[in-house]
Amino acid sequence: MTPIITAFERSPDGGKGLARDTRVRWALEEVGQPYEVRLVSFAQMKAPGHLAIHPFGQIPTYEEGSLCLFETGSIVFHLAEKHAGLLPGDRDARARAITWMFAALNTVEPPVLDLTTARIFEADKPWSAERLPLVKDRVRATLDKLSVYLGAADWLDGAFSAGDLLMVSVLLRLRMSGILDEYENLAAYVARGEARPAYGRAFAAQFAVNAPSAS
Amino acid sequence: MTPIITAFERSPDGGKGLARDTRVRWALEEVGQPYEVRLVSFAQMKAPGHLAIHPFGQIPTYEEGSLCLFETGSIVFHLAEKHAGLLPGDRDARARAITWMFAALNTVEPPVLDLTTARIFEADKPWSAERLPLVKDRVRATLDKLSVYLGAADWLDGAFSAGDLLMVSVLLRLRMSGILDEYENLAAYVARGEARPAYGRAFAAQFAVNAPSAS
Repeated sequence: MTPIITAFERSPDGGKGLARDTRVRWALEEVGQPYEVRLVSFAQMKAPGHLAIHPFGQIPTYEEGSLCLFETGSIVFHLAEKHAGLLPGDRDARARAITWMFAALNTVEPPVLDLTTARIFEADKPWSAERLPLVKDRVRATLDKLSVYLGAADWLDGAFSAGDLLMVSVLLRLRMSGILDEYENLAAYVARGEARPAYGRAFAAQFAVNAPSAS
Repeated sequence: MTPIITAFERSPDGGKGLARDTRVRWALEEVGQPYEVRLVSFAQMKAPGHLAIHPFGQIPTYEEGSLCLFETGSIVFHLAEKHAGLLPGDRDARARAITWMFAALNTVEPPVLDLTTARIFEADKPWSAERLPLVKDRVRATLDKLSVYLGAADWLDGAFSAGDLLMVSVLLRLRMSGILDEYENLAAYVARGEARPAYGRAFAAQFAVNAPSAS
């Protein structure tokens, strides 16, 4: 049965691949699972039909027969459990890869989200210019440690895993700020993720929907 | 083999149970797994010995023989996979409970953390008073939807699960702000979590370490 995901009818990022459906598309491509996409408008996201499958009125969602999921981390994990390719078979290595999934979403992403909020949603506030350096420094405090940990390794813990998929996706949100390029090994790590054929296909699929030239 | 967790030698919250080791203690108590605790000072958290097991220099960590984990979500999930009591057996229900684990940590916790940052770490900033209502409204925007979803149910999806354990733990961080009490059903939901004997034992264990009267 072909799963169905939801994505923005028109992503706010105009096709940069930063909306969270890209993470799920990437996971689907890594495991070779074909999928269908149902595009939703901002109005539809807040309507009862969509809220019934996503209580917070966001995208993406994932429908597979009777199973209906939301939360990118959960959908990626479901795919990683169901198919080979995103989690190692060894018990300890699997638990560590799952640790990196949570680290990406609960340790690294919060300060990254805070930066987006500061740069976009609070850009017009009187405190914006003075506060921004503080927010950026909190991102750096986290990335300093991540960079030391990664060192010269290709991936976070041995082979590429769902932990890397989520971490690269979170770090991609920093590129426009210039902060990612302050860390040579993290920038190379993200580029390594983007160079994966599965990421390329996921990016192209969302770009086809959201690029400025898409009708 | 008895697992070992780490916790603050002296928690910044003085025993209110808001440090993340309480979440892991709670999970251990729910599944009936005895554990040992190694207390670490702030200096030890940033030293090489601890960074080798927690790259971000935080607590808690979890050691079980050769396996060494960090990230509360990951530790709770590991315990939920290893023992009965925190995840349902039914495939779909299990995936939904995992969805709520991620929702607690990646959708609800970021604005809650932002509020803590605003109230504590930016309390002395010139923008603090003017910005705080904005931060509180972002928390409310998330809680509005969670409250509607929960309705009159006892738990998020049928029986108590690791999703509830993490969601209650995240919501507890809002109590002091008064925002939790704006939502009658969410306040009752949190109280229901606190009333569980396993939570009581976890709270008492961290309180014994951190209470103002603890030597």
